[in-house]
Amino acid sequence: AQGQERQGMAKNTNMRWRLPLVCLLWELAMIVLFGVFVRFGAEADAHWEEEKRDMNLTSDMENDFYFRYPSFQDVHVMIFVGFGFLMTFLKRYGFGAVGFNFLLAAFGIQWALLMQGWFHSFKDGKILIGVENLINADFCVGSVCIAFGAILGKTSPIQLLVMTLFQVTLFSVNEYILLNLLHVKDAGGSMTIHTFGAYFGLTVTRILYRPNLEQSKDKQGSVYHSDLFAMIGTLYLWMYWPSFNSAISDHGDAQHRSAINTYCSLAACVLTTMAFSSMLQKKGKLDMVHIQNATLAGGVAVGTSAEMMLTPYGSLIVGSISGIVSTLGYVYFTPFLESRLHIQDTCGIHNLHAMPGLIGGIVGAITAAAATEDVYGKEGFIKAFDFTGVYQTRTPSIQGGFQAAGIVVSLLMAFAGGAIVGGILKLPIWGDAAAENCFEDGIYWEVPEDEESDVYHMHNPDKPASP
Amino acid sequence: AQGQERQGMAKNTNMRWRLPLVCLLWELAMIVLFGVFVRFGAEADAHWEEEKRDMNLTSDMENDFYFRYPSFQDVHVMIFVGFGFLMTFLKRYGFGAVGFNFLLAAFGIQWALLMQGWFHSFKDGKILIGVENLINADFCVGSVCIAFGAILGKTSPIQLLVMTLFQVTLFSVNEYILLNLLHVKDAGGSMTIHTFGAYFGLTVTRILYRPNLEQSKDKQGSVYHSDLFAMIGTLYLWMYWPSFNSAISDHGDAQHRSAINTYCSLAACVLTTMAFSSMLQKKGKLDMVHIQNATLAGGVAVGTSAEMMLTPYGSLIVGSISGIVSTLGYVYFTPFLESRLHIQDTCGIHNLHAMPGLIGGIVGAITAAAATEDVYGKEGFIKAFDFTGVYQTRTPSIQGGFQAAGIVVSLLMAFAGGAIVGGILKLPIWGDAAAENCFEDGIYWEVPEDEESDVYHMHNPDKPASP
Amino acid sequence: AQGQERQGMAKNTNMRWRLPLVCLLWELAMIVLFGVFVRFGAEADAHWEEEKRDMNLTSDMENDFYFRYPSFQDVHVMIFVGFGFLMTFLKRYGFGAVGFNFLLAAFGIQWALLMQGWFHSFKDGKILIGVENLINADFCVGSVCIAFGAILGKTSPIQLLVMTLFQVTLFSVNEYILLNLLHVKDAGGSMTIHTFGAYFGLTVTRILYRPNLEQSKDKQGSVYHSDLFAMIGTLYLWMYWPSFNSAISDHGDAQHRSAINTYCSLAACVLTTMAFSSMLQKKGKLDMVHIQNATLAGGVAVGTSAEMMLTPYGSLIVGSISGIVSTLGYVYFTPFLESRLHIQDTCGIHNLHAMPGLIGGIVGAITAAAATEDVYGKEGFIKAFDFTGVYQTRTPSIQGGFQAAGIVVSLLMAFAGGAIVGGILKLPIWGDAAAENCFEDGIYWEVPEDEESDVYHMHNPDKPASP
Repeated sequence: AQGQERQGMAKNTNMRWRLPLVCLLWELAMIVLFGVFVRFGAEADAHWEEEKRDMNLTSDMENDFYFRYPSFQDVHVMIFVGFGFLMTFLKRYGFGAVGFNFLLAAFGIQWALLMQGWFHSFKDGKILIGVENLINADFCVGSVCIAFGAILGKTSPIQLLVMTLFQVTLFSVNEYILLNLLHVKDAGGSMTIHTFGAYFGLTVTRILYRPNLEQSKDKQGSVYHSDLFAMIGTLYLWMYWPSFNSAISDHGDAQHRSAINTYCSLAACVLTTMAFSSMLQKKGKLDMVHIQNATLAGGVAVGTSAEMMLTPYGSLIVGSISGIVSTLGYVYFTPFLESRLHIQDTCGIHNLHAMPGLIGGIVGAITAAAATEDVYGKEGFIKAFDFTGVYQTRTPSIQGGFQAAGIVVSLLMAFAGGAIVGGILKLPIWGDAAAENCFEDGIYWEVPEDEESDVYHMHNPDKPASP
Repeated sequence: AQGQERQGMAKNTNMRWRLPLVCLLWELAMIVLFGVFVRFGAEADAHWEEEKRDMNLTSDMENDFYFRYPSFQDVHVMIFVGFGFLMTFLKRYGFGAVGFNFLLAAFGIQWALLMQGWFHSFKDGKILIGVENLINADFCVGSVCIAFGAILGKTSPIQLLVMTLFQVTLFSVNEYILLNLLHVKDAGGSMTIHTFGAYFGLTVTRILYRPNLEQSKDKQGSVYHSDLFAMIGTLYLWMYWPSFNSAISDHGDAQHRSAINTYCSLAACVLTTMAFSSMLQKKGKLDMVHIQNATLAGGVAVGTSAEMMLTPYGSLIVGSISGIVSTLGYVYFTPFLESRLHIQDTCGIHNLHAMPGLIGGIVGAITAAAATEDVYGKEGFIKAFDFTGVYQTRTPSIQGGFQAAGIVVSLLMAFAGGAIVGGILKLPIWGDAAAENCFEDGIYWEVPEDEESDVYHMHNPDKPASP
Repeated sequence: AQGQERQGMAKNTNMRWRLPLVCLLWELAMIVLFGVFVRFGAEADAHWEEEKRDMNLTSDMENDFYFRYPSFQDVHVMIFVGFGFLMTFLKRYGFGAVGFNFLLAAFGIQWALLMQGWFHSFKDGKILIGVENLINADFCVGSVCIAFGAILGKTSPIQLLVMTLFQVTLFSVNEYILLNLLHVKDAGGSMTIHTFGAYFGLTVTRILYRPNLEQSKDKQGSVYHSDLFAMIGTLYLWMYWPSFNSAISDHGDAQHRSAINTYCSLAACVLTTMAFSSMLQKKGKLDMVHIQNATLAGGVAVGTSAEMMLTPYGSLIVGSISGIVSTLGYVYFTPFLESRLHIQDTCGIHNLHAMPGLIGGIVGAITAAAATEDVYGKEGFIKAFDFTGVYQTRTPSIQGGFQAAGIVVSLLMAFAGGAIVGGILKLPIWGDAAAENCFEDGIYWEVPEDEESDVYHMHNPDKPASP
């Protein structure tokens, strides 16, 4: 452990004053801004009794809470347990995976409530929040968790907080452009969450390229039990994805349909992932990396279209393809990205979020363009695409075009934003670790003693890795 | 690890072409069949606005989605995390437990949507699906997960997929006979899911009897942390079982009642399990195998009767008895089954599902036979047992008789089906491992290196197991 | 392992007859008492069809089941997985943490249904139960799980069952005094659950003081993977706490508001916890003990006020403060309690539940005292504080006074009750382990063999702890 600390000194990774300062100042800022801006929406305010009467609601059940709260809790689990545990696959970075994800998400949801609130829930100088805002804040933070996957193990907690601050801001701007200016549908966030989040993270990790990362190569793998911990994350993401894609869809059939489409897509995705994982290995053995990640691509790839009349068999097709693309990505594309493009993508978010996100955007554009009044019904058609007011004259094909434009905008925002934020994170003041200390919890965490000694053994070439 | 591979050669366990072929062809078949048959039900279709008007529904809340979706998600967790992690107790088969469960369930739910759809949701040439179909598909797959418990560690993924194909088919036929022909009530599936699934699996494992299984005896145990992983599965099954038994009950009081009965039964079951686990050990120490499994018997045993007026104290009695029976089964019956009947039951599903399932069927028959208009109310009585149409003249005692017949039919289907499917799985083409390689992830999975060496040590008699 | 058993003999920890006897007799008592007293409430009874007509309800959705069941399931997860896994942080006490928590909670919910039923749901000689009773039973048991945290690793399962019996009784009395006699609001249980539970547990552990506990000091720490298991507990508690605090609030805006306030408080709490955890370590490294526990203080501290108009920024303030107080407690207060006051608090419940519980009670009193008709609306004001009937004339400031009195009553009940129960648990008949065998699963559990040898090594001073 001595050698480690020496290296830690070389690059000052001591967080003692920097991390507390950032956390406390930012939390103080949140309190002040919440104090000025954030209030309860009508459905969470004690005046609801009067509101109910004014709106002729006969039952408390009409409160949006009951339409969305179960889905909200599922989404909440996905963000904190899903993403957190998915990233525990590294043998010595479980604390950082779960703990830093916890930290950045807890900050991010506060900042997202404000940013998204200013854009979408601002009324008479106040942001009025309800359960839908909580879901959207979780969604926004989801895109940060995705980006975190690319830089996992290579960044300090302060860098993550700085990235969260900027990414949440950019996410909200991008989301506003897509949903309000382009009038695009993206309930499950293939474009706003996955495409944006993944390409943002990939750009950041490109800027933060570490040429000597092979020095910590021995810690980039998993151990048996860390792979099982990661499967907790995988399964919760997989199981609750129908809730994710349906959480903010319109009440009634749209939520119902989103859940079914996502369920189907994910089921198909598992089979094609297993098939290609086995096929691409010389001895036909399955690779946990694929099972942990590519099985989820089906959820990403129906993010835009799930609430549309994609149909169950359409979902199976999309899910099947995305599982194949994602698994191929892990085998062929990730090594290429690293060696040729210097993009070091720890969790392979390019395969799980970037490519499936693009597929999702494209499938959404096609599904929208192919919509007919026959399939949706006259009212259903208008309701599904919100073709009211100034959008009354939009046709499906025009909508499809705008959907496609949404992909392009998300990509541009991700590249530009990622480049700027990557540049900021490169400043030598944030306390990131040296290359040989990457993927190692001991830098930022008190680690139980008996395990430290294991690590020491790992670094000791005279002793076998596992005595 | 060399020795291992040599043995792997002896029996060709290489999945490289077989597994991908099966996965891809079957997924293709699903896509085609879904394309021909499966469409959204009225409540998930974009025409819902019109439907709502036609049915005089005043609120989107009346959509079945809101009655059942929270329960659906709980059931989904039980199938994938519950069953998956429950089976991770083996020290070296965690990947297979979680991963193969994932694979077979993901395939099974697609095939179940079709099979059950043809029987129950077929209209004008189309299967119309909604959230209740998703729950039923998960239920059907639950019976496969149960059977998987008997053959855990001894079968190849292809065998599991083949078994799933046949078992889902047989399940659907059996379910149709019980629910539609015999007009039996079985909302929590004591008969259709547990009795059928368990005896099917036991018959299969009997046919696949391996005389030399003691060669892999050292891997049939658990290690400390694998037992904790298994407890994740146990607890999620235990906690969400009230959702399982109430998920497809009638709206209102029936769902409410099912949840309460199941909650009570499970609570009682824990105490009797702990009591007998301690009592049956020489030193009074508790055995994790019992805690992981027998505590769940209470959920199985009220599967049929939970939605009936079983009453909370009735549930406590049923739960208490099933915990005792199940624990006794682990201590006395499982060794007997193995040594005398050549039934090698890896997870002890006979104790957790078969016997409690039978209890559940019998309790259901008695509870139905004992029903009176006084206890249920005139309308409640008719609604609870659906004594309408051609069943208008059924009396409780006749219903009780039909319930009992349902048990017998389920048993017959399980034995006959299990024998046939076991025979098919015995064909030497599916790539199952040799006896000395059972319960070993390394055969079908890429396993992190440092752990392989542990396994090697285990096989090396010159070195202590834990250095 | 021999040495261990010798010590086990010295103090007879053999549970073989005692544990089964207690479990079976108590379960029998539950069955009899349930048989005499417990019946389904109107909404879970088959007469519901008639009830619906009598009450002019037009939809099954009006059944309380649909308002509360999703929250109930979340609370259920918190009690069994949340508390259970949170306590698995000890390297060799994971079975006991999860397993004994399972046992005491399963017994406790049955006894709580009766005790709380007699006080709150008693009608015509019967206790009528529904989903709200299940939630309240889980809540009551939550206070026992909290107390368990203080004595974790030092008590036998029988002692835990005896404590549960008494604590549930006292909890119910205290709850009745607060809610019915003082007419206090405490939906999330800052006073009834946390303050009472924690000070009760601390008093018990004070009475059970073990002067030689440093003999098992080597087992009081965590290992790498046990810390990750504990994070499962932490995250489920953290994520589902909004459900906990809103589960029994009034339908509509109150449930909605409670969830939002709790969400905000918990998010803020994570940042201040991380800040102080880093700040208080010489090298600025984060401590898993703080992250696992203090991040949850924000949920405790808004337990009383979450359903009031605390406002989102008020929640951020409360959450921030409680995170700081809790982390400071772990660093400075826990060692002080142990060395000076002889209070050995295994999980640090003083920091996670006692102090934040007091904060919660005080914040609740202030928020109630500061309530105005302007903020709540005329009807909302009356509804929020239930100022009807004999309480029609209560003013906010008087309510605030009663809220404060509720804290004092809870404290007195906890101290007095804890002292008595602690005295009972000190009797030498319950089979607790000797000091050198504390925090060791091997005393009460069959532990997988290869791990026993590890433990042996730990006790063997000639061999390094981790070879």
